[in-house]
Amino acid sequence: MSVFTPVTPEQLAAWLRRYSVGSLEDLQGIAEGVENTNYFVTTSRGRYVLTLFEKLTGAELPFYVYLMDHLARHGIPCPAPIADQDNDFLGSLNGKPAILATRLPGRCLEKPTAEQCAAVGAILADMHLAGQSYGRRLDNPRGPRWRREAAAQVAPFLDAEAAALLKEEMGFQSLFRLDDLPRGIIHADLFRDNVLFEQEHIGGLIDFYFAGNDILLFDLAVTCNDWCVESPGELDEQRTRSLLHGYHAVRPLSALERGGWPVMLRAAALRFWLTRSLDRHMPRPGEIVLVKDPDWFREILRLRAIRGSNLPWLD
Amino acid sequence: MSVFTPVTPEQLAAWLRRYSVGSLEDLQGIAEGVENTNYFVTTSRGRYVLTLFEKLTGAELPFYVYLMDHLARHGIPCPAPIADQDNDFLGSLNGKPAILATRLPGRCLEKPTAEQCAAVGAILADMHLAGQSYGRRLDNPRGPRWRREAAAQVAPFLDAEAAALLKEEMGFQSLFRLDDLPRGIIHADLFRDNVLFEQEHIGGLIDFYFAGNDILLFDLAVTCNDWCVESPGELDEQRTRSLLHGYHAVRPLSALERGGWPVMLRAAALRFWLTRSLDRHMPRPGEIVLVKDPDWFREILRLRAIRGSNLPWLD
Repeated sequence: MSVFTPVTPEQLAAWLRRYSVGSLEDLQGIAEGVENTNYFVTTSRGRYVLTLFEKLTGAELPFYVYLMDHLARHGIPCPAPIADQDNDFLGSLNGKPAILATRLPGRCLEKPTAEQCAAVGAILADMHLAGQSYGRRLDNPRGPRWRREAAAQVAPFLDAEAAALLKEEMGFQSLFRLDDLPRGIIHADLFRDNVLFEQEHIGGLIDFYFAGNDILLFDLAVTCNDWCVESPGELDEQRTRSLLHGYHAVRPLSALERGGWPVMLRAAALRFWLTRSLDRHMPRPGEIVLVKDPDWFREILRLRAIRGSNLPWLD
Repeated sequence: MSVFTPVTPEQLAAWLRRYSVGSLEDLQGIAEGVENTNYFVTTSRGRYVLTLFEKLTGAELPFYVYLMDHLARHGIPCPAPIADQDNDFLGSLNGKPAILATRLPGRCLEKPTAEQCAAVGAILADMHLAGQSYGRRLDNPRGPRWRREAAAQVAPFLDAEAAALLKEEMGFQSLFRLDDLPRGIIHADLFRDNVLFEQEHIGGLIDFYFAGNDILLFDLAVTCNDWCVESPGELDEQRTRSLLHGYHAVRPLSALERGGWPVMLRAAALRFWLTRSLDRHMPRPGEIVLVKDPDWFREILRLRAIRGSNLPWLD
């Protein structure tokens, strides 16, 4: 149960008087989520999600909160923050920064079809285009610099084979600067559990708290490594092509991006291998984290490296 | 049929490439509306309304468009304009200023219940509170100054009895300045056909193109004269009290506002008597207007004046 900071109906009803969303009818803690406290909130007017931020601070939050507002105004189905009567999105509840946002319909998929992968590709491209006019900037906190630091921290805990793979991959990635690839706002974590589907229709994209500015193709690679993967880690050709075609129909991918694709798939696998390894080997004190298996992404990275440039693309 | 400026699916599909709302699936003209061209638009992502403005200009529109955006961000269920990839709400289509906005669920009511009137009161109060932080300003274009000009234009067309009623009412209204009554953004036209209901739940408030800055209680009076009226024009006590209590629970009404209530109910009736009389007697050339019966509001005005201060209030 991930309610770190409890909120009573009485506390919330009083807090909601600052908003124009009607009166409180129901409040229910959400079990998912390891970084924030989340509640489903039902009022006489509609359905919302209340988030209390346990780690992000009032100084860090505006980038994310205004990003969701920006994307929602462009028609991207993401949580739309609700402004209070002082016209602020960010409030404070029980000592934590807090926001109220719209609740989106739908459920996560476990086994997406090729059509659903195409829809995810299209919405990711739409999000990238809508993000181009966003006025705030935050370099992806898990970009190349973080990668070098994380690799150095993780290396001592690895067995010889894994250490060799990491060293080789860091060398490989350092060959590329990729400065000419299109950049912008990326979600950076668009796994299956962050997309809500109602049948074939996308109800919402959620969890923007890893978003930042980076290479757009990196975002597509992160998405691809989750949505289009068959156990134990190879890409399913049909789903991969569907994801790419769905994306390409909205934001055409260039020859330069075709060249960067194998590098980005490896960089995306490396990024999650590193975070999961850090979570396992260097847990931050006092933190409750559901440690996901780092070896899943180690294997994905190994398989991508073996395939070289011979990975599914548009053609 | 109120499609003054036709749009083909091909034209719209091309225009929608500037937006992040998916691909066009359906386009259907809307018969209602006498000032703008409206279409229902369905894309792979959702349901929208396309509006082409036939009279309002690019200089006048930002007040209304940003107002809807502001209110939607505060959780008021009104059409939320969608920004294009240049981050603009207002575009141009077939030579007319145009916006794409969310389509709201629900249908208009003909015979509202007391509970539904209470819900309308509550949402109007929420809209007034949310409007307090709106940064743009537009004096109600049909406020006291307009009233004096309209009365002078209409007077020559009236029979003796109506002319006497108008003269008496203008004299009565001129006794009051009401400068101390709370002011802010008002909808100014929240008739039954501008509120969408899904059973007891309000799906949306629409048609903000008469909005402006004025006395908040005037807005409540305009609403009351439509939602709580029994033929031939008296107020239904139960619905009036429900509307007022619904409003009061969200934005408490003051003793000063109690004093202004009979004046505002008459001012609200007068405003619609005047516009409808202008539409009948002085139609603007080349304009297609569904002329509504001015005598309906003449009678409402007469009845409110007879009752004096003896009109339903909170108690």
